Amino acid sequence: MTENKSCGLDSVVRILQEANQILILAHMSPDGDTIGSSFALKHALGQLGKKAAVKCADDFPDKYKYIYGQNNVFDFAPDLIVASDIATEQLLGEELLKYSGQIDLCIDHHPSNTHYAKNYFVQPEAAATCEIMAAVINQLGVNITKIIAESIYTGMATDTGCFRYSNVTPKTLRCAADMIEYGAGAAEINKRLFETVTRQRMELEKLVMQTLKFYHDGKIAVLRETLEILQKSGAEESETEGVASIPSRIEGVLVGITLKEQKEDGCKISVRTSSGVNASQICAALGGGGHNAAAGCRFKGSMEDAENAILLSAQKGLKQAGIL
Amino acid sequence: MTENKSCGLDSVVRILQEANQILILAHMSPDGDTIGSSFALKHALGQLGKKAAVKCADDFPDKYKYIYGQNNVFDFAPDLIVASDIATEQLLGEELLKYSGQIDLCIDHHPSNTHYAKNYFVQPEAAATCEIMAAVINQLGVNITKIIAESIYTGMATDTGCFRYSNVTPKTLRCAADMIEYGAGAAEINKRLFETVTRQRMELEKLVMQTLKFYHDGKIAVLRETLEILQKSGAEESETEGVASIPSRIEGVLVGITLKEQKEDGCKISVRTSSGVNASQICAALGGGGHNAAAGCRFKGSMEDAENAILLSAQKGLKQAGIL
Repeated sequence: MTENKSCGLDSVVRILQEANQILILAHMSPDGDTIGSSFALKHALGQLGKKAAVKCADDFPDKYKYIYGQNNVFDFAPDLIVASDIATEQLLGEELLKYSGQIDLCIDHHPSNTHYAKNYFVQPEAAATCEIMAAVINQLGVNITKIIAESIYTGMATDTGCFRYSNVTPKTLRCAADMIEYGAGAAEINKRLFETVTRQRMELEKLVMQTLKFYHDGKIAVLRETLEILQKSGAEESETEGVASIPSRIEGVLVGITLKEQKEDGCKISVRTSSGVNASQICAALGGGGHNAAAGCRFKGSMEDAENAILLSAQKGLKQAGIL
Repeated sequence: MTENKSCGLDSVVRILQEANQILILAHMSPDGDTIGSSFALKHALGQLGKKAAVKCADDFPDKYKYIYGQNNVFDFAPDLIVASDIATEQLLGEELLKYSGQIDLCIDHHPSNTHYAKNYFVQPEAAATCEIMAAVINQLGVNITKIIAESIYTGMATDTGCFRYSNVTPKTLRCAADMIEYGAGAAEINKRLFETVTRQRMELEKLVMQTLKFYHDGKIAVLRETLEILQKSGAEESETEGVASIPSRIEGVLVGITLKEQKEDGCKISVRTSSGVNASQICAALGGGGHNAAAGCRFKGSMEDAENAILLSAQKGLKQAGIL
């Protein structure tokens, strides 16, 4: 058995050039970056006369149809298996777990990548795997067609909140600029991905915002996403993404708390903080954890008890930060 | 009297270099682009040993304090008056109207610029005046300091909805990339300008969303911003920006209508459309107008009558687009 090894851009390109039938794997619960990077690579390899297809344990969301909608048939025995944007083999998902231990090449930007592939090209400084894939495709020497440009642009936009987050570097923006030059319809993609919300999601926001309560002169805000609200809104679980960031977006709020009622007893608590208040510490008091500015925990018991418990801990957090 | 004339980058730079005491004017109801471009120029001229100050008819919003918060004293007789991001002299605002007819140089990106300045450098293809100002400052040969970089970045971000809109070009993204390299804290600026909302604004959204009604199988959505809601939310007029785009953001909505009740009789109606439905035509039926995808009109009478009238016109619009 040979050791898995880190490789550079040249090795990645050589490995891809030597293969003829390439299976590309995207991670479960696929997002714009895994879909975009996988299909960009598929189309690039197609231009080189190779057979290539993308597989994913879950269905691709409709909103990315402009990327995956084209011919994607897997009717060959692969001589190379590539994982794109997949940090750990668990993220292959049930249906693709059979490829565990067989992945020849992994291209990824997650710092938490477990180096499970025989060859791994992991660049944590890249805002998105698509940013790395753009370099790979450039080096392969193929034309950046409209579909490749839109695939790459999509992953970079979705992993950066449309170029808002702290992972954006000058390289990210220059790569996006290149993709627009290569024909990516950036404005249409942005509208589709960042402006449009479902009616159910809008209803969900309306209902959860009615539960908003403020404490300590508006320094703490608490939002409740109850099962009743979720049902009333008609929203799917996948449409609840981002609700936990609503309270912390409010000016003056240093601790934003969201209580999400669970079907089983109790609730999930999300905490977002700013101004040096430690979210991880606040959640640790209830057996949870996370990062300095975003953390979570679970609570068994009523929503009222959950709110009281996390409020007490949030107060302590404000005191420790010298604010209360 | 000499004719006003269009000038190029070289002339702009020469005019600035020949001046010693420069007054820079920003437009009334100042936004990120007029503030950013004005202060970027002020700081650049300061580096060249010139006196420069920025004036505006209205106060600068607090959220831009990181730009305007530094020393900005106007205690000199200007030998050059520059207008930055000002399309027409009316936009000087009451307090600065005294400078009408005296503006030596205008730097702007609005296609509607009326060429009121003796020398005007208008580039409608630029996403923001800050994009033009970056070129001017580069040509002036000064150092792009952190404050200049953050000023330029801000105008580009605010005029493009943080790089979402159709006015973004590869040049825009590359210019933003340069500013990050020159030290702009892009992530902090984005969080401040695009993530944070006031408590009153959040309250306003919550209340207006409760008025949301759908017609024609969800193809038309109507939102009401009543005086009662505005008062109850505690939001200022300046915090109501963007409310008119809420209904059109909902998936499946082709005509998004917002009725904004006025203190005087009646209401302002905003219409946003997609899929080829003509907003301008819909509003023309009520005496208004605008663009294909965004238009408006005024209505004298009750909110109910306004809703019925604009719904009737919207239905016609859907029919004309072959949708109903």
